[in-house]
Amino acid sequence: MKDFNYSRIEDCKLISFDKNHRIKGNITAVNSGEEIPFEIKRVYYLYDIPGGEARGGHAHKNLKQLIIAGSGSFELILDDGFNSKKIRLSQPYEGILIPPGIWRELTSFSSGSICLVLASEIYLEEDYIRDYENFKNKKRKNSSNS
Amino acid sequence: MKDFNYSRIEDCKLISFDKNHRIKGNITAVNSGEEIPFEIKRVYYLYDIPGGEARGGHAHKNLKQLIIAGSGSFELILDDGFNSKKIRLSQPYEGILIPPGIWRELTSFSSGSICLVLASEIYLEEDYIRDYENFKNKKRKNSSNS
Repeated sequence: MKDFNYSRIEDCKLISFDKNHRIKGNITAVNSGEEIPFEIKRVYYLYDIPGGEARGGHAHKNLKQLIIAGSGSFELILDDGFNSKKIRLSQPYEGILIPPGIWRELTSFSSGSICLVLASEIYLEEDYIRDYENFKNKKRKNSSNS
Repeated sequence: MKDFNYSRIEDCKLISFDKNHRIKGNITAVNSGEEIPFEIKRVYYLYDIPGGEARGGHAHKNLKQLIIAGSGSFELILDDGFNSKKIRLSQPYEGILIPPGIWRELTSFSSGSICLVLASEIYLEEDYIRDYENFKNKKRKNSSNS
C-alpha cells in the first residue's frame, strides 16, 4: 500500500466481502492480513449520529484503514491534495480501504447509521493531520520533491 | 484469561467502553491489547437478521472474543457446561468478553440489529465445537481430571 507522499484517490479501493446470506441473516468477516493488507490494531465505530450530520475531516501519516457502513449509509469524501472524490457507502458487505495520506470527511449520515472502522494502528494523536491546508501543502511539497 | 478447561460463566466480563458522546454522535474505540486482553485477528458482524431470530450455538477451544450490540439488541446465552446465564446486550458502548470453553447462543434479535464480534484468532473450523453434548462432556471430564 502506498505511503503518505505517493497515495492518490485511485489507491482507495472498494472491497466487496462475502455476505454469507442465509435465511437467519448475513455474516461478513474480515481477517487481519487476509481480506485487508494489514493487522487490525484498533476497531472503532460511530453511532447515534443525527441524520444529515457530518464528521470533521483529517488525514493520517501512517495509519491504514477500512471504512464500512455497518448500518444505514453515509458519504465519504476522499482527497489526495490534488483531486477529490465522493463515494456513498450503504452496504455492510462493502468497505473502502484507505492508505495513509488521504484526507477524508464523512457526511450525509442517514439516521441510525453506523460507521465501522478497522485501523492498522492504535490511537496516536501525532499520526493525525487535522488542518486541510497543512495537509495539501505537505502532499504537494513531497510530490514536487520526488 | 482462563483456558477451555477452567473457564466459567463468571469469567465472561461485561466491559463498558467510553462512548465519547458529542452533539454530532458517539464514537467508541477498542484497541488491541488495551481495552481487551488480546490482539484482534478477525472482525465479523451479523446483520439483516429477521426480528426474533436465533443463531445456532457453539463453543471455541482457544478463541477469545468480544461481542457487542452495534445496533439494536439481542440475548446472549452463556453456558460453561455446569451453569448458564442469559444477558441482553443493547448498548453499542458495552461488550461481553468471552474466554474459550463457553457455549454461546444468540437469540431474540431485534429488527435491524447488528452483532459485532472482535476475535483473537482468524477462522479455523477445528477451533469450533458445534455439538452441545460433546461440549458438556469435554468440560465435565476435564474438570473431574483436575
